[in-house]
Amino acid sequence: MTITGLLTPGSHRAAELLDDRAVARAILLTEAAWVTAQSRLGLVPERIAEIARDAVDHVDVAEAALNRLAVASEGGGNPVIPLLADYRAAVTEIHGSPVGAVHASLTSQDVMDTALALVLKAARDSLVSDLTRTGDALAELVRTHADTVMVGRTLTQHALPMSFGLKAASWLAGVDDAARDVLDRAHLPVSYGGAAGTLAAGMALCDQGGSAEQTADRLFTLIGYWAEELALAVPDQVWHTDRVPVLRVAGALAETTAALGRMVNDVLLLSRPEVGEVREPTAEGRGVSSAMPQKQNPVLSVLLKRTALAAPHLLSQVHSGAAAAVDERPDGGWHAEWPALRDLAVAATAAASHAAELTEGLTVNSQRMAENLRQAGTGVMAERLGAALTPVLAGSDGSTAKQRVQAAVREHPLDAEALADHLTDLIEGENSPSLPDGVNPRERASVGAWLRQLLDPRGYLGATPHLCARAVENHRERLIS
Amino acid sequence: MTITGLLTPGSHRAAELLDDRAVARAILLTEAAWVTAQSRLGLVPERIAEIARDAVDHVDVAEAALNRLAVASEGGGNPVIPLLADYRAAVTEIHGSPVGAVHASLTSQDVMDTALALVLKAARDSLVSDLTRTGDALAELVRTHADTVMVGRTLTQHALPMSFGLKAASWLAGVDDAARDVLDRAHLPVSYGGAAGTLAAGMALCDQGGSAEQTADRLFTLIGYWAEELALAVPDQVWHTDRVPVLRVAGALAETTAALGRMVNDVLLLSRPEVGEVREPTAEGRGVSSAMPQKQNPVLSVLLKRTALAAPHLLSQVHSGAAAAVDERPDGGWHAEWPALRDLAVAATAAASHAAELTEGLTVNSQRMAENLRQAGTGVMAERLGAALTPVLAGSDGSTAKQRVQAAVREHPLDAEALADHLTDLIEGENSPSLPDGVNPRERASVGAWLRQLLDPRGYLGATPHLCARAVENHRERLIS
Amino acid sequence: MTITGLLTPGSHRAAELLDDRAVARAILLTEAAWVTAQSRLGLVPERIAEIARDAVDHVDVAEAALNRLAVASEGGGNPVIPLLADYRAAVTEIHGSPVGAVHASLTSQDVMDTALALVLKAARDSLVSDLTRTGDALAELVRTHADTVMVGRTLTQHALPMSFGLKAASWLAGVDDAARDVLDRAHLPVSYGGAAGTLAAGMALCDQGGSAEQTADRLFTLIGYWAEELALAVPDQVWHTDRVPVLRVAGALAETTAALGRMVNDVLLLSRPEVGEVREPTAEGRGVSSAMPQKQNPVLSVLLKRTALAAPHLLSQVHSGAAAAVDERPDGGWHAEWPALRDLAVAATAAASHAAELTEGLTVNSQRMAENLRQAGTGVMAERLGAALTPVLAGSDGSTAKQRVQAAVREHPLDAEALADHLTDLIEGENSPSLPDGVNPRERASVGAWLRQLLDPRGYLGATPHLCARAVENHRERLIS
Amino acid sequence: MTITGLLTPGSHRAAELLDDRAVARAILLTEAAWVTAQSRLGLVPERIAEIARDAVDHVDVAEAALNRLAVASEGGGNPVIPLLADYRAAVTEIHGSPVGAVHASLTSQDVMDTALALVLKAARDSLVSDLTRTGDALAELVRTHADTVMVGRTLTQHALPMSFGLKAASWLAGVDDAARDVLDRAHLPVSYGGAAGTLAAGMALCDQGGSAEQTADRLFTLIGYWAEELALAVPDQVWHTDRVPVLRVAGALAETTAALGRMVNDVLLLSRPEVGEVREPTAEGRGVSSAMPQKQNPVLSVLLKRTALAAPHLLSQVHSGAAAAVDERPDGGWHAEWPALRDLAVAATAAASHAAELTEGLTVNSQRMAENLRQAGTGVMAERLGAALTPVLAGSDGSTAKQRVQAAVREHPLDAEALADHLTDLIEGENSPSLPDGVNPRERASVGAWLRQLLDPRGYLGATPHLCARAVENHRERLIS
Repeated sequence: MTITGLLTPGSHRAAELLDDRAVARAILLTEAAWVTAQSRLGLVPERIAEIARDAVDHVDVAEAALNRLAVASEGGGNPVIPLLADYRAAVTEIHGSPVGAVHASLTSQDVMDTALALVLKAARDSLVSDLTRTGDALAELVRTHADTVMVGRTLTQHALPMSFGLKAASWLAGVDDAARDVLDRAHLPVSYGGAAGTLAAGMALCDQGGSAEQTADRLFTLIGYWAEELALAVPDQVWHTDRVPVLRVAGALAETTAALGRMVNDVLLLSRPEVGEVREPTAEGRGVSSAMPQKQNPVLSVLLKRTALAAPHLLSQVHSGAAAAVDERPDGGWHAEWPALRDLAVAATAAASHAAELTEGLTVNSQRMAENLRQAGTGVMAERLGAALTPVLAGSDGSTAKQRVQAAVREHPLDAEALADHLTDLIEGENSPSLPDGVNPRERASVGAWLRQLLDPRGYLGATPHLCARAVENHRERLIS
Repeated sequence: MTITGLLTPGSHRAAELLDDRAVARAILLTEAAWVTAQSRLGLVPERIAEIARDAVDHVDVAEAALNRLAVASEGGGNPVIPLLADYRAAVTEIHGSPVGAVHASLTSQDVMDTALALVLKAARDSLVSDLTRTGDALAELVRTHADTVMVGRTLTQHALPMSFGLKAASWLAGVDDAARDVLDRAHLPVSYGGAAGTLAAGMALCDQGGSAEQTADRLFTLIGYWAEELALAVPDQVWHTDRVPVLRVAGALAETTAALGRMVNDVLLLSRPEVGEVREPTAEGRGVSSAMPQKQNPVLSVLLKRTALAAPHLLSQVHSGAAAAVDERPDGGWHAEWPALRDLAVAATAAASHAAELTEGLTVNSQRMAENLRQAGTGVMAERLGAALTPVLAGSDGSTAKQRVQAAVREHPLDAEALADHLTDLIEGENSPSLPDGVNPRERASVGAWLRQLLDPRGYLGATPHLCARAVENHRERLIS
Repeated sequence: MTITGLLTPGSHRAAELLDDRAVARAILLTEAAWVTAQSRLGLVPERIAEIARDAVDHVDVAEAALNRLAVASEGGGNPVIPLLADYRAAVTEIHGSPVGAVHASLTSQDVMDTALALVLKAARDSLVSDLTRTGDALAELVRTHADTVMVGRTLTQHALPMSFGLKAASWLAGVDDAARDVLDRAHLPVSYGGAAGTLAAGMALCDQGGSAEQTADRLFTLIGYWAEELALAVPDQVWHTDRVPVLRVAGALAETTAALGRMVNDVLLLSRPEVGEVREPTAEGRGVSSAMPQKQNPVLSVLLKRTALAAPHLLSQVHSGAAAAVDERPDGGWHAEWPALRDLAVAATAAASHAAELTEGLTVNSQRMAENLRQAGTGVMAERLGAALTPVLAGSDGSTAKQRVQAAVREHPLDAEALADHLTDLIEGENSPSLPDGVNPRERASVGAWLRQLLDPRGYLGATPHLCARAVENHRERLIS
Repeated sequence: MTITGLLTPGSHRAAELLDDRAVARAILLTEAAWVTAQSRLGLVPERIAEIARDAVDHVDVAEAALNRLAVASEGGGNPVIPLLADYRAAVTEIHGSPVGAVHASLTSQDVMDTALALVLKAARDSLVSDLTRTGDALAELVRTHADTVMVGRTLTQHALPMSFGLKAASWLAGVDDAARDVLDRAHLPVSYGGAAGTLAAGMALCDQGGSAEQTADRLFTLIGYWAEELALAVPDQVWHTDRVPVLRVAGALAETTAALGRMVNDVLLLSRPEVGEVREPTAEGRGVSSAMPQKQNPVLSVLLKRTALAAPHLLSQVHSGAAAAVDERPDGGWHAEWPALRDLAVAATAAASHAAELTEGLTVNSQRMAENLRQAGTGVMAERLGAALTPVLAGSDGSTAKQRVQAAVREHPLDAEALADHLTDLIEGENSPSLPDGVNPRERASVGAWLRQLLDPRGYLGATPHLCARAVENHRERLIS
């Protein structure tokens, strides 16, 4: 529930955008923009709109005031009511008397949902910017390390050779996928429904004696002005109880932390001393252990992993809240969405900032990667050998050829030379092995050279260069579109 | 064991699409299509592809076999390995000897993810169809009941008059929003990465001595054929560990159950005997209590609410699994996705079927709605009175006029006539009240007539007709696009 | 930034116990107590312990300082490191030079976990007190309304007669069950493991040249003193990565919100205007709608429902964090526990306060209960009639007798007199119905009187009085034990 | 939702205990025991009870029948109703006519909850047995490896020396904690409330014309007989809507998977080829990769990690369901509990079986542990050096001494000899260093010997032996109690 809290280290990176002060300001700006919209429609003089805008800065939103407002929020179950009282007082003070246009025809849910739309917009700008930084840094890693060989691991065990560029490309795909969803879906329109979603008070406000059609046109124009003032979209429908738009925001945020989470799972693993292939950037005072000077804890990654562990639960809280909506405005489901949605926005926004710093400063130890690949031994070439020798070790069916290769690999797990010799022996034992063009089955050296080439991990990277290039290209396209 | 469980009543509606037999069949079809794709590329004769396709039906996927396969799945941690063994045996049986093209260059994750894509596609077709039925039924309710007045409720209490059409329009908006997301996002492409996501074995398979570029082109053509055979899309990247595509599917499914959930929250409330405004359709043997014959339990709604309560947790399980991905293929995160993703698909698919039946057969008691609105009394008109009388009860500032109205409403909570009289008295007490054109402040009857008209709930439905029309229009547009 | 957030109305009730200031203070007190413990063991002079205790109040934990500390927490991934720096500075300032005993042999996780134990203890005291208030109020409602008849509802429909006391008894059972678990399980011991859970630095600290056994004895004595100073328990083991104790706390807290949640589901329903059987207590400014003066929103219940919707997700976040522990101190799993555990403690503590206020002030409208029971009609007596008439409507098998009763009830759903007459006719049609002693089958009046008595809901409350008495008794016993 | 499903490999280990057949059988046994209880009270002849028991085996619960029953469960929203119909038919068949005692006074929730209690009991026996096996195996590992040194890791980095026995002791503590909770809390009593929780039909059933007190006594005796027949406990209260008992079961199960999950996080890490310290047991066909013969995937651990990732979400689903209870029997919340509770029981039960196999067969590579500790270098001794040299490097304040040690460690990260020399130089530079008794500051060899001893990791295991012994002792005590 907190923002810059002691229990959520790193969340200060998103605090100004999403803390209680930001929420309070957004509520006030939402109310002021509504008066401005009315003045644009001619319902009140522009002078009143000016007062309404001025009043925003006259409402106290310092720490003590926020605490008072939080306490007062209990009465109505939401913070709009006490903030509106303060705002009305400020307007009245400037104007000399109350201004009826303030909050006219609105319900507190209209203001609350719209204010959340406003703070989410600010957070999203920061989030997108940091995801773009992250993506750019990853694209650079992909380009630089497209050929930096390392061992690929599956189910924790050594599998095949690959390049670090390909690993970064996979991270990049996730980040780009998430960023696209944040751009497309992590925003909310203004909320306007009035006390029970019928727009009745709004219709009365805009009624100038014309037809209902004309009144409705005026009302939708008014809503459009309001949205323009806040730089938010106009919704198709009243969404007081149709919370799918909120679920979309939450989904895009949680996709982001998931994409970043799987990246840091790799970083945490690869930066273990036994692996030693990457290292997250250091910073003054970060990751230091007072007792153990040799330690450099990967704190950025730890905090990112923490966030990725938490986010699914924040997402499901938003979903449970949304699914509990009832009536024309809900009796608790709506209220359960707010803290989880904010925490999720804080989590994703801070995480993107951490990720940008992490990826921009990641140290890659290509020597260690090469060494680990070497240590992985001949086993990582077994798939290739099995396929290549299946037609060679004739007289055997496919599986038997594979089995002979496997036995050979098990016998020579580390020594590629010895394995090549051993396999040459096997091939010599075949009657008329069907070898590739240019390999002479009767020349041991020719067979051996072919096998040695088959055993070179650098020659078995598959489509790695293409996949790397494609990831970079996809990222570039996302930036353009 | 199938998914038609005793503990998930109603899930049989989705069982055939998503049960273990469907999964097993999808795995087999995925393998067969891979051989077909190879034959289309000329890697194997068409005759082999025919055998591969024939073999699908020769693999035993009856109950006992599925149980055996499930047990055997433990060894490799997934069902592909034992099913592949059975499939290879069937192919060998038909062909007379093993066929190397079977599963050539694939890893079990390729097959598993693609098979899940396949069963999800089938479920999605059913889901979209039932969401469309639901939307159509709701659109019909909107049209029929655009003018059927009822009381709007917020935070459980009576708020304003509205129409049942508007309530149905709000349900419809959620269903349409969810359906749009299901269409756009609830599908997966084929999965192809090979043992460690490098496509290395695939490149070897397609290598005909040309350049790497040419080999890659052939490989991507092969993947394209495979996808065509399965009517699935081709992905941009290897998604073994980038699980955002899976999160999108899960998100769209959970949005669906949330949208349906909030609808049945309303249905469950409105069908309580004390409210009595709607009734879900009955069916032979449904909702009957043996001990209490008078009871007709709203079982469809109960099961839908059950589903809406469960789905957020299935969604978050998928997210936790995805966020735990590590290495080139994950060590448990991937495995945690499957059951939750399937359960979510079952939940959403069965829920849409329930919802279609519910909405197509919903009984609306407009008389009871009118009666409940009447019982809600004059309070539901207080907002309108307050706004209308603010300029009338002169000498008072805005809030004071409202306060006088409120006091009057509290004095006459049920009797509109008495309230009109009371307010007429108040207006008479004003010096020169600014009444609307045509209302004569000095004629009691004229003032009274105006007040009576203000107190008519049917005159305070706001933009209800426009919102109803718009929801129907939006739904029609979705059907077209 | 405190936890008294605008987005969690009502959480201010728990704020002082659990906010960042409380956490910071707990960290400082934990460090100070460690020095005191050392002085009790004779490792440092008592004078040093005094300084250590004095220094607690010299560390700035005002708002601005907390914000600064939160920012600084990022560096090490937890708030202990920056707070310790401030605390060391304060000690040094008073002492004139650094004091080696501060934090000697501790790791930040020792301090963090122990500080959380400390704030949870304070919250638990408040929680238990408010649950006891709630239980007492419910017990009073049980006693008062043991005979206040109302209609029992199942699956939303009218079922059988019951008393409101029994409903309150069921709420009470849940509250008592939860309170028992809070007492038994919602507490943590001190945490002591040192840098890697080996207690190595602690052993060095306590080493006086004796045997390892003697050193260990001294160390465990030291830990015991520390726990005494903090009024916490001593654990059996290092729990840096064994987080079951944390899961127990979280579980007890979530049980509490679940028990309160189901209570307010009932309150929200029963306080709907169409039901009108209870009303939550009003308070100045609570539940008021500015636009709709007639409304009195059940805000306490809404906030409680909000909490009950949120808590399961906070619980599962704690579980996911705990299950992710690895190594001797975790790389993110531990960090994911904190905010969820605190939010859960805030949620449960504030909820218990809300519940106490709600139950102590609940208004029960027994007239409306009686009226709703009357409206429920004869159906609620059908179970009893079916059982009673099964041996009477002879010649029919059991089900047929029931079917005849059901048909009769459907024919006379509201008019008990008419139903009695109708059933009398049926009985007269039987040859020799086996009626209870004292009922004369040949006297219509006698049969009718028997049936009328069978149709009296007050006579079919089953074991309601016993269940009410037992709930009160169980509650009393919990208070004593 | 499934049991032995293809998508939940390994769950077949719990299938027979918890699958649909087991549930169906439990429902039938519950009904039969109710008739037996009535016969024990004298309400029906013993002959009827025999028939009721015989009839259990006459109800078809083969696959096809279960599918039919599952479909039929939709009508009433639970499987009791169709199973009861089949059971009644079987009883009627044997008896020649219907038996009124079948299901007399029960509601379907009574039977459903009691049947779940019954299957949970069977699963719990298996679970406890496998947790005991796991604990025993771990205790053996603790004993065997109390002195097997390895490097302790925190936040992924090398921290201090420890022993593998201590790591196993920490796993054991979690397993014992969880096992204790499973024993204490993972069970449910019989459920008895009747149609609306009033026990009204039960009171009518037991009414023999005595006082209400006497009737209630008979009824509670009857319930007691029923519980005896099923070997379940008798509850204090009706728990139709007070679901705390269910939450306790779910909590204990999820604690179990969390405790096992953190263990396999370690196993998965330690069995990575770069670490190589442990290996899970192999079995025919397990963990084999067809393409990559060198691979031995740690499948048991992967499946356990999968389970630990999933369980928190199953737990929260149970909580969300419980918190949604309303009325006298809930409208969906109850139904949402079942599949999650069963899946959780399956998950925990299968996980315990996996864990027993894993721990009983775990291979520990103490040579590799020693080697990794050596590779960790001098850094892991820095804490000890810092503390030991603080009083020695006089003239410096504490932190400065530490800083000088740290600089020295950084200069000689691997070579303990060189570090000892370097530190000897530093000490020689001090005026009158306060060295321990027996170390002569003027003799370089004496100082060097002292430093070399300080640098021996085996000498810095802290309380490791005591903690190991205590864990074994705690485990033994749990077995006894």
